[in-house]
Amino acid sequence: MKICVAGLGLIGGSLAKTLKKNTDTVVYGIDINKKAVTLALAQEAIDEEITPEDMKNCDIVILGLYPQATIDFIKENRDNFNPGGIVIDTCGIKKAVVESAEQTLSGTGVSFLGCHPMAGREFWGFEYALDNLFDKASFIMTPTENTPKQTVDTVRQLALDMGFAKCVVSTPQEHDEVIAFTSQLAHVVSSAYVKSPSLFRQAGFSAGSFKDLTRVARLNEDMWTSLFLLNKEPLLSEIDHVINALKDYRDAIADNDSDRLHELLKEGRELKEESIRNDVR
Amino acid sequence: MKICVAGLGLIGGSLAKTLKKNTDTVVYGIDINKKAVTLALAQEAIDEEITPEDMKNCDIVILGLYPQATIDFIKENRDNFNPGGIVIDTCGIKKAVVESAEQTLSGTGVSFLGCHPMAGREFWGFEYALDNLFDKASFIMTPTENTPKQTVDTVRQLALDMGFAKCVVSTPQEHDEVIAFTSQLAHVVSSAYVKSPSLFRQAGFSAGSFKDLTRVARLNEDMWTSLFLLNKEPLLSEIDHVINALKDYRDAIADNDSDRLHELLKEGRELKEESIRNDVR
Repeated sequence: MKICVAGLGLIGGSLAKTLKKNTDTVVYGIDINKKAVTLALAQEAIDEEITPEDMKNCDIVILGLYPQATIDFIKENRDNFNPGGIVIDTCGIKKAVVESAEQTLSGTGVSFLGCHPMAGREFWGFEYALDNLFDKASFIMTPTENTPKQTVDTVRQLALDMGFAKCVVSTPQEHDEVIAFTSQLAHVVSSAYVKSPSLFRQAGFSAGSFKDLTRVARLNEDMWTSLFLLNKEPLLSEIDHVINALKDYRDAIADNDSDRLHELLKEGRELKEESIRNDVR
Repeated sequence: MKICVAGLGLIGGSLAKTLKKNTDTVVYGIDINKKAVTLALAQEAIDEEITPEDMKNCDIVILGLYPQATIDFIKENRDNFNPGGIVIDTCGIKKAVVESAEQTLSGTGVSFLGCHPMAGREFWGFEYALDNLFDKASFIMTPTENTPKQTVDTVRQLALDMGFAKCVVSTPQEHDEVIAFTSQLAHVVSSAYVKSPSLFRQAGFSAGSFKDLTRVARLNEDMWTSLFLLNKEPLLSEIDHVINALKDYRDAIADNDSDRLHELLKEGRELKEESIRNDVR
């Protein structure tokens, strides 16, 4: 199988490395950043650099680009993809990307599948790409009524061959709603957390909880600004939920309401424990 | 040196194990929970169980009790401590405990030092005690004008002998203000986070950020209710800060204000990076 990875950043670069390590596919690379291509070749993450026109010969094209760049790349390369081939993206939001991609590729014979490999790091760029980034990760696919079953099967098998822990099938809508909670809200809360005037008093006063709560404040603001604005309604709803929940704790503490505070904390512990059990099932 | 650990839960039990592993002290144990004492003896975390009256023979008494229990234990055992000896506590808040302890022990010759070993787990009880829990941890001490310098030196040396990564000297007031941010707020935010209706949709949609943000929601509500209410003003101030910061992100997203959102996220990343540099120095 011939696969092209277009966009050799953290995600695209890690996927290329993982493909080379765990599968027999030939991996081609495209990136406007020539340093990324040079590194990818030097580290044997790709077999060869190709031009967009060469994508015609590829069975699968994986886009490792930001949301707007993904949408634009598909438009610009509408006629460069292999009719009968598959194009997948790797964006953290699905609805806006999938709708645009399906519209653009309609009638070309190219089949598009929205995907989201669920892993990341607080660093970006090919320099940080790892061949084991996805070892324990979920691979989410969001087919629509327009996606051939064969495409889903092919991509699922590829993800499992690469070593993803599991494949999850969702809809673009469900994906975006849940990801607003599991990933986007985490980044907003972590970023908001470090805005306290107490931040620079913390050295020597921190254990694991501070580190955990603030780790993802170290984010790529270009990418996350775009992800947040393309998923506005679900994310606003989650931010409102957490603000309202925080107010409950605030009020219980302000009122010295020990029973209420105890109940809020107990409920939180039980929910967390139930969600761990739920996750294991 | 003879040391008594009163309260053999996660913290007291781990301190006893660490003392036995890394120092030459004789370690005695006290706990109203006889199962904890039996386990501590079986695992050689303590050399012997003693009665409160036997504390008279100990150079140092370490209290591994909740805040109110610490205050009560000191009152009840005012005349059981060794005049000339040292008593330290291990509570997560210092002002309320230190003030009460100093008042109670005034005139006894016993010297009290408020301490906070900065480590924890999402589990509690002696069963979860570890002899390496404090390996990378700070040991915070909060002496007051009433604390003899010799007491601080003795406890600092003991903490370093046990293997704590560093000792930090603070005041009860400063400790409580900073801990409201680094530890208490983390537990409130984590507990609030899991209250979203999206919680049980998350299986398969989570990467590290969700796990990190919600890990400490699994807390001991008895202990944390007490810790929060004994540190009301600093904690309320931190909760208000994070709510207000969250509203900034909320408004920027609601207004589609890409520049503002980008600026908020960039600022958060830069603050986090600066705090990491600050921590390393």
